[in-house]
Amino acid sequence: MDASTETVAGGETGGGTWKFPANKPLRLESGATLSPLEVAYKTYGRLNEAKTNAVLICHALTGDQHAGSVNPVTGRPGWWDSVIGPGLPLDPERYFIIATNVVGGCMGSTGPASTNPKTGQPYGLAFPVITIADMVRAQAMLIEALGIDTLFAVVGGSMGGMQVLQWAADYPQKLFSAVCVAAAPRHSAQNIAFHEVGRQAIMADPDWRGGAYESQGVRPEKGLAVARMAAHITYLSEPALQRKFGRELQRDGLSWGFDADFQVESYLRHQGTSFVDRFDANSYLYITRALDYFDLAAQHGGVLAQAFQTARAVRFCVLSFSSDWLYPTAESRDIVRALNAAGCRASFAEIETDKGHDAFFLDEPQLDATLRGFFASTAQARGL
Amino acid sequence: MDASTETVAGGETGGGTWKFPANKPLRLESGATLSPLEVAYKTYGRLNEAKTNAVLICHALTGDQHAGSVNPVTGRPGWWDSVIGPGLPLDPERYFIIATNVVGGCMGSTGPASTNPKTGQPYGLAFPVITIADMVRAQAMLIEALGIDTLFAVVGGSMGGMQVLQWAADYPQKLFSAVCVAAAPRHSAQNIAFHEVGRQAIMADPDWRGGAYESQGVRPEKGLAVARMAAHITYLSEPALQRKFGRELQRDGLSWGFDADFQVESYLRHQGTSFVDRFDANSYLYITRALDYFDLAAQHGGVLAQAFQTARAVRFCVLSFSSDWLYPTAESRDIVRALNAAGCRASFAEIETDKGHDAFFLDEPQLDATLRGFFASTAQARGL
Repeated sequence: MDASTETVAGGETGGGTWKFPANKPLRLESGATLSPLEVAYKTYGRLNEAKTNAVLICHALTGDQHAGSVNPVTGRPGWWDSVIGPGLPLDPERYFIIATNVVGGCMGSTGPASTNPKTGQPYGLAFPVITIADMVRAQAMLIEALGIDTLFAVVGGSMGGMQVLQWAADYPQKLFSAVCVAAAPRHSAQNIAFHEVGRQAIMADPDWRGGAYESQGVRPEKGLAVARMAAHITYLSEPALQRKFGRELQRDGLSWGFDADFQVESYLRHQGTSFVDRFDANSYLYITRALDYFDLAAQHGGVLAQAFQTARAVRFCVLSFSSDWLYPTAESRDIVRALNAAGCRASFAEIETDKGHDAFFLDEPQLDATLRGFFASTAQARGL
Repeated sequence: MDASTETVAGGETGGGTWKFPANKPLRLESGATLSPLEVAYKTYGRLNEAKTNAVLICHALTGDQHAGSVNPVTGRPGWWDSVIGPGLPLDPERYFIIATNVVGGCMGSTGPASTNPKTGQPYGLAFPVITIADMVRAQAMLIEALGIDTLFAVVGGSMGGMQVLQWAADYPQKLFSAVCVAAAPRHSAQNIAFHEVGRQAIMADPDWRGGAYESQGVRPEKGLAVARMAAHITYLSEPALQRKFGRELQRDGLSWGFDADFQVESYLRHQGTSFVDRFDANSYLYITRALDYFDLAAQHGGVLAQAFQTARAVRFCVLSFSSDWLYPTAESRDIVRALNAAGCRASFAEIETDKGHDAFFLDEPQLDATLRGFFASTAQARGL
């Protein structure tokens, strides 16, 4: 039905960029529309004949569609290659796995670096503010374009988990199951505060140019690096930082200056500088804004359970990590309580780890086992 | 013995800037010396004839000597006016209270904004890296200059608490008691990480000019504001932020843009912008560095108890706050364990509050009661 620059390949791995025609704009929660809309995606495995084995993967703040295969920008393994792959919980032999880049992103889906059709220049701050619901709506358009009525599962961690919850609220009839890892039903004051620090760091960089840096041939690299450094601390637990780095020095003795004396400083600096090679500063502004605006209960009269009233047929799995202080277990419990109150079937596990929030894409045996168990029993129920 | 621009006033409040002559340099832990040395200080109350009622107040990262009276720069009450004052735990009627500005600071003591005698220009990055022990050594020089042999108490919270511990390690014979509030015996990897974010934010600001901004008529205000915002989040607990701000909006409805939509954003921005009016960016670099270098056990063969071996006669009071995640209670317990192992007398209390690290200068009834009790019994023992 819609033009695609690259159709799903016949082989194990496919994808491309789905270009929706002008008569298929993305209607945004703000009231604005976004057109033309492009959604970059990647697929692993084959859709079965009954079209019952499709799994949608939703990525976190700085993730992308390269969930299960080498990222062409960084040359590094896909961000969820501990979960997607032969013999792993999401095996392409069994499932047709689809990962998209969120709208607002910078890896091929329409975002602030895309060309604004009104000006012929990159959108910059003329890009409309988008929400988690908008990201999900764009994904739903792609799923429909791919001819899929029902997803076997929608799965994601962190911001990806919020998309999963939004899917359950907005398209429950399209879901057989939903897996929400290390997420929250809304952004807390502390979550917003950390994001605001990052945004201010970007906007303080004179090379940001009011968001118009793309057309002026500069990039707010220093500001974006600082934003990433601040955020990165929130992804790790204090004990993990202590275990990994403690007060270990880079060299023998202190520098008595402002070089990176401590290994943790060097590590953080590296996190900052390597991030700017792969991420767009305006995308960072827009996606953090979408996260801050996220409050699923507020969309449903202030009652979270209302969000799940029509999702009783969906099989939920909610997972949290004991040392995650960004989206602590208590917030996953809020989700589970609401699911229970709505009469949904939900399994919940708090996974014991000292690795903090980022545990969701690290090699975490208990996560692996839990996902395996959930997908195995759910696949059986689906007749896969 | 030494020249002072302003001698201690006869009245209730005194102070000034003590200028040490060239033959009294500050010998630094790095091996460098700092000369001329000036120490800005403020006093409340009168020294008794026996010189037994002197209390030294040590300030936190961004504090100063104006602990108990209006700060002339901000026009706001002293940072510890909940503790120092008539009828309060440290009553100037009873005690001679001395508060100094740390060396490296920007409120009158020698710091990176002071004139480098070698160049006639502000030091900038030519200022030597200083440590908590250096701050304490400068204080000890002032105390000696004021003719005081023994302090009734040395008292401080946060970085001030670290100075208290350093006093006990370096000058135990000069202390009758020591009160360490919301501190730690060393900076953790997470502590260092947050400071490094702040330093990188400052150094990323083009107006920082490699530290030479003073002589170039600019100031890295945006970078310093971002540094303050990031740090400020660590001073508050997540529950306090949630209780105080939650997801409350500044105006009716969302802006669908990057204005401060949420009250917590506006609050943080205000913390950043108001901070740059009163604080120097290079001082921020140097003082955070001093904190990161702090590791009292490492100064004593890796055994914290060794630091307190000569402090058995000192009466210690160690206090922590239950919701402090910057210097959590566990770190105060480490201090207490080491004091016990060294055979020191130490009382310890964890104060229940959801206000986080900053509780140490908020109106906290349990803190007030604990300090009152400790000072009352200790004053009795001292015959005051």
